[in-house]
Order: sequence, then structure tokens, then C-alpha cells
Amino acid sequence: MNTIIGKKAWAIAEGYIPSWSNGPEPELISHETACILNTTEQNASVEITIYFPDREPIGPYKLTILAKRTSHIRFDDLKDPEPIPKGKSYASTIISDVPIVVQHTRLDSRQSENALISTIAYAE
Amino acid sequence: MNTIIGKKAWAIAEGYIPSWSNGPEPELISHETACILNTTEQNASVEITIYFPDREPIGPYKLTILAKRTSHIRFDDLKDPEPIPKGKSYASTIISDVPIVVQHTRLDSRQSENALISTIAYAE
Amino acid sequence: MNTIIGKKAWAIAEGYIPSWSNGPEPELISHETACILNTTEQNASVEITIYFPDREPIGPYKLTILAKRTSHIRFDDLKDPEPIPKGKSYASTIISDVPIVVQHTRLDSRQSENALISTIAYAE
Amino acid sequence: MNTIIGKKAWAIAEGYIPSWSNGPEPELISHETACILNTTEQNASVEITIYFPDREPIGPYKLTILAKRTSHIRFDDLKDPEPIPKGKSYASTIISDVPIVVQHTRLDSRQSENALISTIAYAE
Repeated sequence: MNTIIGKKAWAIAEGYIPSWSNGPEPELISHETACILNTTEQNASVEITIYFPDREPIGPYKLTILAKRTSHIRFDDLKDPEPIPKGKSYASTIISDVPIVVQHTRLDSRQSENALISTIAYAE
Repeated sequence: MNTIIGKKAWAIAEGYIPSWSNGPEPELISHETACILNTTEQNASVEITIYFPDREPIGPYKLTILAKRTSHIRFDDLKDPEPIPKGKSYASTIISDVPIVVQHTRLDSRQSENALISTIAYAE
Repeated sequence: MNTIIGKKAWAIAEGYIPSWSNGPEPELISHETACILNTTEQNASVEITIYFPDREPIGPYKLTILAKRTSHIRFDDLKDPEPIPKGKSYASTIISDVPIVVQHTRLDSRQSENALISTIAYAE
Repeated sequence: MNTIIGKKAWAIAEGYIPSWSNGPEPELISHETACILNTTEQNASVEITIYFPDREPIGPYKLTILAKRTSHIRFDDLKDPEPIPKGKSYASTIISDVPIVVQHTRLDSRQSENALISTIAYAE
């Protein structure tokens, strides 16, 4: 009685990895995350492309989200084809071969207390 | 002149119950909530399934949201079939037999000031 | 060349007016807001209904949002038919006779620093 | 294998540029942003209109978002036809001639720690 839910094309127009952090590691390191849920019975092949204000997009970053699993992808863990620069604006698209759900979250601990944002991403 | 609004299938791709808190209890205990609104004239039978990065999903957690009522479900109150581990990533689907509206909120008081996130969940 | 954008039925499943505040008044008083945008050439007749966990809904609260104007409605300003209790969970529907756009925001200044949430409301 | 994603008409019902800030400049100056992503192969001609509670809308503010680029537009950088007043409520529509994705973010550093909000904008 698994329910399949989601779409195959997602976008996050906001992106910014803060350059510094405060607080106990690793929980309170500043980071930005694409939380991805795959409710299907198949592994999802996911391609992330990163867009910038002033240069060509980079990617795709290729990921597998296992069947019936969630994965909270940290943008600062994406290394291939190249790491995403910190302290600079970017945006992303997240394209999957099966339906997924994507939510965008940032923990910003640059000041002594942490700030959090989260929003459902744009899908179609 | 009650207006029926909502959908039957919802997903929250972000999930994380912080492991510790600061501030006066009970208002400022760290917690994560699925706020559910049932505008219909019928009680809603709701099933929540929890997805993880590295194990099979658990659930369904079965709830009733009364007709023309809202219920702000704390994920740390879900106990049957088993409690959700703290300090670990998860995601959820929320399936109802009548239209509902779901919004996701977290209060994180791990540092001395609280941080809040909230977003409408994904529906279809 | 005014663009009409929006829908007539909206819901906010999360609702909670914090009971206390910190910081300079009036900007940093804890409050919860439904930001409503009316891009049409007609005044919008808007009806807000408030739902609770444990009692019948109250409302409608009747408002007019002027043509081509925005109004950031504070839930603690709603008085007729009755004020919304502080420190308790609620949810709301916002129904208009012309298309509008609704966004939900809370400023929580219960601890010495403020926390903010905002999300687009659910529409259909 | 570029994926085109987005819509041409967007609205942000919440708008407020905080009047003061704390923390190291320029990163932690209070600001409000419309993050715009253009995944298409064409430059996007974008028109922003600003709505108020008590006066006629102003605009359009005309912008170009380059093909395959993102731009994080700060509302306090909009100067023509006139700057947006600080410390006052507003709302906005963002209309493009090609599909775009819009996300709304505010950094509020009025108290000694910063608060952040972000939400996908409303699209149709």
C-alpha cells in the first residue's frame, strides 16, 4: 500500500552556502540541503544542475536516491564535476527519472544563533 | 457555507527532530510538526509513513483528524508502530481519505535562541 | 498592463500567535500575518474562517482588500466575531470573490532574538 | 540536455525591507530578495510591479535575466521608477516573457542574531 507521490522536474531558485559557522559540529555547521524523497519501488537517477549569475551552468551532478528512501543532499558535498563555491549565489534544477519530492533547507549559523529556512521546491 | 479545500496525498521531504533544546518548557522544546487542516464535514482517516536514508519505511501511523478541526501533529508524539529517532534525517507522506491541507513546521531551540521553519507541504 | 494573478480559495494549516515578545515595539512584537495581494481592478470581499483542534470553527471574519492593493492582515487584529486566543493552535481558510495571493508569515520574538517563518499558502 | 522549467507569472504577497541591521557587512545587512532562475536559452525580460496598502502600484521595474543564469534581485536595489520605502509593507508581481522560477528570501538582522525566511513564490 505504498503511495507514489511526486514529480520529475524540480527547481530551487535560491542557493547560497554560508562561508562560516558557529556552534557545535557537525550538527550546527552552516549548510544548504536538497531533501529528496523517493516513494517509488525503483531507484531514482537524479541529475542536479547548478546555475550562476555570471558563468555557464555546471553539472550534471549525478546521484542515485534509493527506492523507498529519502536522502538529504548537502550542496557542499557535491564535488563532481566541481565543488560549489561558498558565499556566492546560485540556483539549481533537480531532474529525476521517477517521481520524487524536493524540499530546500538551509542552516545558517554565521551569527552565534542559528537561522533556518525551508521551502518546498518548485515542481512541474 | 463551509468551504472544502485540500488534497488527499501530501509529502514532506525534510524531517529532523533536533536532539536537544533551550528555553522555557513546553513552548520552546525543539519539535517538528505536521499541521493538518480538515475543512470537510467528515472525520479524516490519515496514514503517515516515515522514510529514512538507510532502512525500510515505517508506518502507517494512523490518526483521525476530526471534521472541521485542525490538528498540529508532533512527530515526536508518534509512537505506534515505533517512535521516530531524534537527530536523524527522515521524510514523510501523509495520506487521507478526505481532502486535507498540510503544513510543515519545526521549532529548533538547540542554540540559546529559537529558529523556526515552515512550508506548505507537497500535494497532488 | 496590469496582470491579474491568484486564486479564490486559500488555506493556512499552521497558526499560532505567540503569547509574549522581546525587542523594540511595534516592529518586533510577536505576530502572525496573512499577507494578501489583490492585483485585480475590483475590491476583494474576503472571508476568513478559523479552525481549532477542539471546538467549532469561528467566522467568517469579513475583510475588504482594495483593488490593486496589498494588505498584511494580523490575526491578532481580527476581533469580530471574536478575538483569536494566543498561545493556542489554529488554522485558517481565506476565501475571496476575486483572485488573490496569500502568504503566511510569523514573527516570533519570545526569546531575545526574533525568529521568522513564511510560506506561500495552499491554494486551489 | 538543458531542462526548461518555470512559469511566466509570479507573485510574492509578503514584502518588507527591515529598516536596520546588525552584524558584519555586506553579508548580514537586512535585505529582501527575489531569486530568479532562467533555465531557458533566451534572455528573460522581466517586469516587477510593487503593490502597497495605501497607494497606487509602482512599476514596472524592468530587468533582464540572462539565458541559463540566476539572479538574486534585492528589492532595495530597485531604483527606477523609484526606490521602495523601508519599514513598510508591500507585495510584488514578477512577469517574464519566458518561463522562470522565483523564490522569495529575507535576511532580517535587526536583532543581534539574524533571522531568515524563504518560500517559493506563487506561480500560474
